[in-house]
Amino acid sequence: MGMIGGGPGAFIGDAHRRASRICNDFELVGGIFSSDYEKSKEFAKNEGISPFRCYENVDALIKNESEMPADKRMEVVSIVTPNDLHFPAAKSLLNAGFHLVCEKPMTMKVKEAEELERLVTVKKLTFAVAHTYTGYPMIRQMKELIASGVLGTIQRIDAQYYQGWINSIIHGTESRITGVWRLDPKHAGASSCMGDIGVHAFNLIEYTTGLEIKEILSDLSPVKNNIKLDLDGTVLLRFGKYLKGVIRASQVCGGEENNLRLAIYGSKASLKWGQENPNILYMLSDQEQTKIFKPAHSYNGPMAEAAQTMPCGHPEGIYEALANIYKGVAKSIRGEKFIPGEFPTVHEGVRGMKFIQSVVDSDKKGNVWVKI
Amino acid sequence: MGMIGGGPGAFIGDAHRRASRICNDFELVGGIFSSDYEKSKEFAKNEGISPFRCYENVDALIKNESEMPADKRMEVVSIVTPNDLHFPAAKSLLNAGFHLVCEKPMTMKVKEAEELERLVTVKKLTFAVAHTYTGYPMIRQMKELIASGVLGTIQRIDAQYYQGWINSIIHGTESRITGVWRLDPKHAGASSCMGDIGVHAFNLIEYTTGLEIKEILSDLSPVKNNIKLDLDGTVLLRFGKYLKGVIRASQVCGGEENNLRLAIYGSKASLKWGQENPNILYMLSDQEQTKIFKPAHSYNGPMAEAAQTMPCGHPEGIYEALANIYKGVAKSIRGEKFIPGEFPTVHEGVRGMKFIQSVVDSDKKGNVWVKI
Amino acid sequence: MGMIGGGPGAFIGDAHRRASRICNDFELVGGIFSSDYEKSKEFAKNEGISPFRCYENVDALIKNESEMPADKRMEVVSIVTPNDLHFPAAKSLLNAGFHLVCEKPMTMKVKEAEELERLVTVKKLTFAVAHTYTGYPMIRQMKELIASGVLGTIQRIDAQYYQGWINSIIHGTESRITGVWRLDPKHAGASSCMGDIGVHAFNLIEYTTGLEIKEILSDLSPVKNNIKLDLDGTVLLRFGKYLKGVIRASQVCGGEENNLRLAIYGSKASLKWGQENPNILYMLSDQEQTKIFKPAHSYNGPMAEAAQTMPCGHPEGIYEALANIYKGVAKSIRGEKFIPGEFPTVHEGVRGMKFIQSVVDSDKKGNVWVKI
Amino acid sequence: MGMIGGGPGAFIGDAHRRASRICNDFELVGGIFSSDYEKSKEFAKNEGISPFRCYENVDALIKNESEMPADKRMEVVSIVTPNDLHFPAAKSLLNAGFHLVCEKPMTMKVKEAEELERLVTVKKLTFAVAHTYTGYPMIRQMKELIASGVLGTIQRIDAQYYQGWINSIIHGTESRITGVWRLDPKHAGASSCMGDIGVHAFNLIEYTTGLEIKEILSDLSPVKNNIKLDLDGTVLLRFGKYLKGVIRASQVCGGEENNLRLAIYGSKASLKWGQENPNILYMLSDQEQTKIFKPAHSYNGPMAEAAQTMPCGHPEGIYEALANIYKGVAKSIRGEKFIPGEFPTVHEGVRGMKFIQSVVDSDKKGNVWVKI
Repeated sequence: MGMIGGGPGAFIGDAHRRASRICNDFELVGGIFSSDYEKSKEFAKNEGISPFRCYENVDALIKNESEMPADKRMEVVSIVTPNDLHFPAAKSLLNAGFHLVCEKPMTMKVKEAEELERLVTVKKLTFAVAHTYTGYPMIRQMKELIASGVLGTIQRIDAQYYQGWINSIIHGTESRITGVWRLDPKHAGASSCMGDIGVHAFNLIEYTTGLEIKEILSDLSPVKNNIKLDLDGTVLLRFGKYLKGVIRASQVCGGEENNLRLAIYGSKASLKWGQENPNILYMLSDQEQTKIFKPAHSYNGPMAEAAQTMPCGHPEGIYEALANIYKGVAKSIRGEKFIPGEFPTVHEGVRGMKFIQSVVDSDKKGNVWVKI
Repeated sequence: MGMIGGGPGAFIGDAHRRASRICNDFELVGGIFSSDYEKSKEFAKNEGISPFRCYENVDALIKNESEMPADKRMEVVSIVTPNDLHFPAAKSLLNAGFHLVCEKPMTMKVKEAEELERLVTVKKLTFAVAHTYTGYPMIRQMKELIASGVLGTIQRIDAQYYQGWINSIIHGTESRITGVWRLDPKHAGASSCMGDIGVHAFNLIEYTTGLEIKEILSDLSPVKNNIKLDLDGTVLLRFGKYLKGVIRASQVCGGEENNLRLAIYGSKASLKWGQENPNILYMLSDQEQTKIFKPAHSYNGPMAEAAQTMPCGHPEGIYEALANIYKGVAKSIRGEKFIPGEFPTVHEGVRGMKFIQSVVDSDKKGNVWVKI
Repeated sequence: MGMIGGGPGAFIGDAHRRASRICNDFELVGGIFSSDYEKSKEFAKNEGISPFRCYENVDALIKNESEMPADKRMEVVSIVTPNDLHFPAAKSLLNAGFHLVCEKPMTMKVKEAEELERLVTVKKLTFAVAHTYTGYPMIRQMKELIASGVLGTIQRIDAQYYQGWINSIIHGTESRITGVWRLDPKHAGASSCMGDIGVHAFNLIEYTTGLEIKEILSDLSPVKNNIKLDLDGTVLLRFGKYLKGVIRASQVCGGEENNLRLAIYGSKASLKWGQENPNILYMLSDQEQTKIFKPAHSYNGPMAEAAQTMPCGHPEGIYEALANIYKGVAKSIRGEKFIPGEFPTVHEGVRGMKFIQSVVDSDKKGNVWVKI
Repeated sequence: MGMIGGGPGAFIGDAHRRASRICNDFELVGGIFSSDYEKSKEFAKNEGISPFRCYENVDALIKNESEMPADKRMEVVSIVTPNDLHFPAAKSLLNAGFHLVCEKPMTMKVKEAEELERLVTVKKLTFAVAHTYTGYPMIRQMKELIASGVLGTIQRIDAQYYQGWINSIIHGTESRITGVWRLDPKHAGASSCMGDIGVHAFNLIEYTTGLEIKEILSDLSPVKNNIKLDLDGTVLLRFGKYLKGVIRASQVCGGEENNLRLAIYGSKASLKWGQENPNILYMLSDQEQTKIFKPAHSYNGPMAEAAQTMPCGHPEGIYEALANIYKGVAKSIRGEKFIPGEFPTVHEGVRGMKFIQSVVDSDKKGNVWVKI
C-alpha cells in the first residue's frame, strides 16, 4: 500500500495508516507524504519506509512502482490530501491500474467524480471512498435491519452532524481564518460544512436505507461576515411523494465534538444511532419495548457481526471502523466474495459530490428545490 | 377555579386539575365538563362538585358566578376543550372579568388570538396559555442562563418534537382516522402536527432565548393519502442576518413518545435539554468540561430554583411543571411580584398562532419564506 | 385525613400533603403539625385548616375526632414526625381505630414494630409504611415481571443507595453536626445511613422479588471521629444456599443526590432500575437485545399500568409515586379490591426494623453473620 | 516482539497483536502460538511469520533468539497463555534477558509473582502486566485528578465488574462446564471470578487512587452445585481507620457484557467511570454542576491527553487502550522518559496475586478479615 498526503500532523493520514495495520492485510511501502519533498522524505524515514519509495510526485510513483515485480509493487494507494488534489492523483493512478482508497469529498466537481466512476468500471479496479462511519458495526446492522423490511414503510428520516471546532478559529484572529484550508474555496471546494460533514450524513442515509434522495432544498449560513463558505445549514430532503427528511449540519455548535446522528422512522419500527457512542443502536416501536442492539451478538446480521472482533462489551472505535473498510477493500482486491456495503464505493463518492453541488445550488438560487 | 372541558377520559383536563391541586392555590368549584350536559353533571358529581355550579353553557356559568359574593365566585377558569371552542369561551369570560388558563393553540385564527390579547390588556386580567413545558425547572434555568449572557452570541437553534402515537390511527381503519378530532380541520384548525406540537417547540425557543423568529420556510407532509392535515414537517427559521435554526416535528416517528428537544448553540457555550428526562440540562463548551445542571441546587437562578420543592435527586415531573404555571397565575391574580416567565402569557399565545399560520402558508405557497 | 408532624420547613410532610391531593381521595382536615402548639396553629391557619382541629397532642386529637360523626371525622392519619415519635402516636391511634400512613423507619425498636403489626391485624385497620419508591410504575413492573418468572432462577441481587448531602454537615462546624436530628441516636434510632436510606434498598429488594433475606453481614463506618452513627456501609446478603447479594449505602458520596439503584440478575434475564430516572426499566439477557420498559404502555402489568395517568413520554415523578401509595390506602380503607403491593404494609415496616437491627448487631459484633 | 500463546481462536492474543500494530513500535517476528507445534506453525505461516522463528518450546525460543544479532532478535515477548503457563515461561525469559508483557493474573501463586518481581528488579528489565483498562484515557485522567488532590479526603470506594457470559455454560451440558479452562482450578488457579475480573477492579482502585488496600473480607459463591470455583462474590475493603469500600464481581449477571465500573467518592468531589462507555468521566460535587471529562481536550492531564490520538468526539476503544500500554512499554525499553502509570508494572501484578489469594482465604475461613 502507498499513501499520498498524510504527513506530519495530519490526523486523517495517521488514521488510515493505523486502520490498515489493524486490518493487517496491508503494509505501507511508500508514497508522497507531503507537498514538500524534504518533509516527505523525513517523514518516510521516521516511519521506516525505504527512501527509494518516497516519491516527489505522482508520475514518479507510478513510473517506479509499475516497473516493480507484481509481488512487490504497491497494489493500492490511499489518497488523504486536501480535497483539490484528490482528482488529478486518482485519475492518474486509476489509469495506471492502481486500486484506490480516497478521502471524501471525492473530487471538487461532479464531473470529475463521474469520470473516476467511469474509469473504475472500465479498469475493473477497487475504489473505496472514505465514508468511515459505514465501517461501524451498528451502522451495518442498521443497513441489514432496514433491508430485512422490519421497519415497514419509512416515514421520516433525520440526520444531524454537529461540530463546534471551527468556533475558535472564526472568533480568533484574521490569520487563523485565512490559515485553515477548509475555509478556502480553492482547496475545500464549494462548501465547508456540507462538503466536510454534511456529506457524511447524506451518505449514511443512502447507505443504510438503500434509498436515493431525489430533491433537496437548502439554507446555508457563513455565520459571520468575511467567511466565504457555509459553516452551518439545514437541508430539506424528498425521497418520493410522501417520504421527507432533513439533514442538519454545523461547524459552529460550540461544545459539540463529532455529533453525527441518524434516525430512520418506519411505520412498524424505527432506528436511532449516534456516532459518539457508536456501539448502541436503538430500535423503537409503538407497541413494544425499545430494544438496544450492540455488537458481537448472534442476533446481528452477518456484516454487522463480522465488524467486531472483540467479545461483547469491549468497545471498539473509529480506527476499527476504518479498518473494517480496509478489510472490505482487501477482500475485493483479492477477488474474495464480499457483501455490498463492506466498503463505500466510487458510486457513493459520485452521489456525495452531487449532494454537495445541489446543496450549494439550492442555497444560491434562494432556497429552492434542486434535483440530485 | 372553574373548568370548561376536561370531562371523562380527557387527560389534559385531568392534568390541569391535578396541577391546580399540587399548587394548592386553587379549588375546583364548578364548570362545564362536557358538551353533553348529563355527562357533565355525572362527572361533577364524581368530583364532589356542587350540581348548582355544573353549568349547561358559558353564559349560564358567567351569569351565576358573577352574582356570587367575591370570596365565593370563581376567579379563574381553565379552558381545556378542543381547539375550536377556545376562542368563544375565552372572549366571553374575559369580557365578564374572569382570569383564564387556556390550552394551546389558543385560538383557530391569528385575529382571534389578537383580540384576546387586546381584551386581556384592556381588562387587566391574568391570562396564561398552557405551554406546560415552560414550567420545568431546567427550562427556566435555560431562560435565566441565556439572559445572563453566558452563551455569547447565539449561532444556531435546533428544536425537535417527535411523537409516534398517530401511527396506529393512520395505519388503522378508516373509522379510526375520521374519529380523531385532531385530524379534522374543523376542530383542530389549519394544522395537526405544527398546531399541536410544533408550536410547543416554537414557544420554547422564544421563551428561553427571548428572541423573535422573523421568517420561516416550511415543508409539511400528510404522510399518507386521505389525510387532510400535516402530520410531519420541518421549518427553517431565521432570526436575523446570521442566526438561523430549525424546528422538526412529527407525529409519525414510530416509537417516539414525547420527544421534545431544544438545543441553543452560542459562541461561548451551548445548552441542550430533552423533555423525557427533564431534570437534566447540559451546558457544552469547546474549552471546558460539559456541565450538567439539575434542579434544587443553589447554582440555579431564582426562577429555576423555585420550580422544584423536593430536595435534589427526587424527580419531579410534568404535573409539577404545570403546577408551577398555576403558581405563577396565582401570584399574578393576587398581585404579588412575579418574575416574567412564571407563566406563559397571552402574547405567547398570539405568537404561537402566528407561527402556525405562517407555517401553513409557507407550505401552501410552495415552501417559500414567510414573515411571522 | 389528619397529619402528625410535617409543619413549616419539613419537606416530607409537604410531600405527603401534595401526594394526598394528587391522589384526590383525601382531604387534610386537621392534625398536630409541630411540637410547638403555637407554630402548629399558625401552620394550620395558613393551610386553611379549622383551628378546632389543630390539636395540642395525640390524646386530644383522638378524643375530639372520635366524637365527630362518621362522615366528618378523620379516617386516616399520616405520621411524618422524627423517628422516635412514630411508635407512641401510632399505637394510640391504632387503638382508637384510625387507619395510618407512617414514615419509615416505622419505630425505634423491632418489638415496637411487631406490636404495631399485631394491633393492625387485630383491629383490621389499614396501615401503610412510607416506602415511597414502591409507588413508581417501573418498580411495580419489576415486581410483576419477577412474579411472572421471566427471570428464571435469581442468581445475584445488588442494591445501592448513595447520597452526599451529609458531607456539608460533617465537614462543617460542630454545631451543624449536633443540630441534625438524624445524627442523634435519641431521635434517629440505632442507625443513620442504614436506618434512613439502606432500609429503602432492603425494602425494594423484598418488595420486587417477594424473597426474604435470611442473613446479613455488615460493615459500617461513621466516616469521621465524633460521629455517633453510621454514615456509610456495605451489607452482604444471603437468601439461601446459592443466592447472595449486597446492599451498599452511604450518605458521604459527595455529589450523589438520591442515587438508589436496584439490579436483580436471573438465569434467563435481569432487571435494572435507578431512582433518578425512574421511568426507565432495563431488561437484560445474554441472547437478546436489552429491552427498555417505560410507563403507560400496554406491555406492562396491571399494577404498573395503573401507576401512571399521563400518556407515555410525559414523565411523572416522586409525588406521583407517593400518590399511588395513597391511592392504594384509599382502596383498602374503602374495602375495594386491590393488588398486594399497592401500598407497603405494616409487615414491610417490621421487616425494615429487623433489617436495621441486624445490620447494627452484625457490625458491633465484628462483622459476623446475623439472622434477620 | 514475540508471543507465547494466542493461536487460532484466542481473542486475547489477537488483541495483543492488534494493539502492538496500532502502537507501531513493535513487529511480531516469532513465538509459540499453540501447545500443538503443528497448529503453531500453521498459524505462523498465516500471519506471515518466518517458520524458523516459530518455536516448539520456550527453551528453543530463548536459545535461537539469543544467538541472533541485537538488531534482529526479539526484544520483548507477550505471554498470553492460560494462567498456569505464565510463570514458568516468564521466569525463563526474564533470566534470559527478555522484556515481557504478561496477561493477568500474572501467576498461580503469590510466591511466584514475587519471584518475578525480584527478577525484573535484578535484571533491570521492563515487565508489563496486561491490566488493559489502565490504558484508557479517562482512567489515566482519574489517576491524574486524584493525584492533584481535587477530591479532598477519599471517603468511599466502590468498584464493580459484572459479566454474564458464563451463564450459558453453567446452565448448559456437563461437557460445557468441564470444557472451559477458566472453571478448572488446575489451569485457572484458586479463583474464577475474582481471578479473572475481580482483580481488574482491584487494580483500577489502586492504580487510580495510589492507595493500598490493607484488609479484605470476602463472600464468594459457586452459584450452582458441582462448580469448583467462585463465579460471584463481594469483597469488603479497608484502606485505613475510616476509609472503606467494596468490590462486587460476578460472571453470572445475565445480560451484563463487560460492565466494569469505578466510583471514588471524596469530601470535595467524586469521580465515576464505566468501561462500556469509556470516553466519559463524571466528576460530581455537592455544590457544583456535574462535569463530564472526555479525551482529547486540553483540560486533561498529560498522560490522559497522550492516550488519545484522534480529535475529540472520535471514539477510541479497547484496542487503543492496550496499544497505549504497549506504547509505554516501548518507551521504557528505549530508555525514554515516561510517566509512572503508562504501563502496569510487575508490582501491580504481585498486588493482584495477593488480592486473589486473600479473597480466597477470607471466604474459606468463614468470611473473616484477611490482610493483603
